[in-house]
Amino acid sequence: MRPRDIPVCGSASVTALFKQNPDSIKRLFFDAPASSRLGKMASYLAQNKRPYRMVQPAELQKISGTIHHGGVVAIIAAPELREPTLDEVADWGKAREGVLVLDRIGNAHNLGALVRTAAFFGIRKIVLADDQQQALPGESAYRIAEGGMQYVDVFRVWDLPGLCRALADTGYDVAGAAVASKSPVSKAMREIGPNRPVALVLGNEETGLSANVAAACTRFVTIPGTGNVESLNVSAAAAVLMWALWPGRKTLADGE
Amino acid sequence: MRPRDIPVCGSASVTALFKQNPDSIKRLFFDAPASSRLGKMASYLAQNKRPYRMVQPAELQKISGTIHHGGVVAIIAAPELREPTLDEVADWGKAREGVLVLDRIGNAHNLGALVRTAAFFGIRKIVLADDQQQALPGESAYRIAEGGMQYVDVFRVWDLPGLCRALADTGYDVAGAAVASKSPVSKAMREIGPNRPVALVLGNEETGLSANVAAACTRFVTIPGTGNVESLNVSAAAAVLMWALWPGRKTLADGE
Repeated sequence: MRPRDIPVCGSASVTALFKQNPDSIKRLFFDAPASSRLGKMASYLAQNKRPYRMVQPAELQKISGTIHHGGVVAIIAAPELREPTLDEVADWGKAREGVLVLDRIGNAHNLGALVRTAAFFGIRKIVLADDQQQALPGESAYRIAEGGMQYVDVFRVWDLPGLCRALADTGYDVAGAAVASKSPVSKAMREIGPNRPVALVLGNEETGLSANVAAACTRFVTIPGTGNVESLNVSAAAAVLMWALWPGRKTLADGE
Repeated sequence: MRPRDIPVCGSASVTALFKQNPDSIKRLFFDAPASSRLGKMASYLAQNKRPYRMVQPAELQKISGTIHHGGVVAIIAAPELREPTLDEVADWGKAREGVLVLDRIGNAHNLGALVRTAAFFGIRKIVLADDQQQALPGESAYRIAEGGMQYVDVFRVWDLPGLCRALADTGYDVAGAAVASKSPVSKAMREIGPNRPVALVLGNEETGLSANVAAACTRFVTIPGTGNVESLNVSAAAAVLMWALWPGRKTLADGE
């Protein structure tokens, strides 16, 4: 596998990949139990002259680099993570797109979990810090996202404080998640209201938001707790905050 | 290590253990980097004639059975998981205790994540299905809970539908988390109100609630999503539901 290729593992992730972007699959490998479920995918790849092959479990593990391959591995090119233009940011604001800003989320499993939750709630824009501490979309993140990676656009930005200011300029409420702030999320829900676009900014698992990013947030939000444990896991906290702050929530919740 | 002993690993978990229940520590092992932080604990164990010892990392891995030991391992007796009495259930209702009911959560990491979130939100009663599919408190669950295990009482119940009915009889709203129901959580929040005690029932990661348990719930709650990914991870869903349904939430949130 070339260094710029990513093995996408597991039935949910590969199925979402095939549904959303079938031409991104460069090669497909699977074991015998999975082969019966892949007829349509194999036909498509055959028509488009892309290799697909049934292999032994040991080879699947070698190809994917994980024991958690779930019987099927699609090889794709690593997505190019570019900066959004200011025009794009303005368009996000007009469309009131939810934006998730990740300031050095270091654990690839956490990145995958956040992508799964974002995709579940329809938050389609994810901006990563261009920083060596930041986990990038790779095998683990694709697998843990359970197909969610196909429903989000991932960007990478060198000047994350600048991006936060650009979001604020275009009308976003830029909410930084903070453990120690005195701004409970229920208060933020009332103040933001259902119509304003929201960007949620999450900091590093150990060190939280960097000072420059925090300074560019328009508010902080905290999930109040008992203090028994120091904090929620970042993916648990993010699920609460996405559910509470995402402006489409009310429509979706009450419309059902 | 005897089979009924559990290695509790990592600084957060061992610190919480020592703070809440120091006499439960039967033996303590640690590596050189951790030793400087453990002076108080070592003194206490010495006074109480409990063995503690600095060991090589390889031995710590052998003692704990994991590479994720975080430099410190306390050996405790596995907690006895008994059934709550009907009187206890009635007392929970009077005190409006949050109750988390787990109907065969199979993954020990998920159990640990749920315990961490429950401890964070002050939900102190956790009832497990007495079923071979149900993960039990062991090394992984203690470690992932980051000390949260010390702030919850864990029970195990053979007749989980009967427990749900007993909770309902004592005034609980017994809310089963369901993917396919038409009862969004925001509606449940309005209907339940801030004062009624709530038991949240979570089903198996793959198969959901068993039919008998579902029949004993007084309502279902769903977190509405886009359908892009099939569901939230159980720990993400549980974080949203605990935050939304826990009756103490409003006080805690608005009081800050």
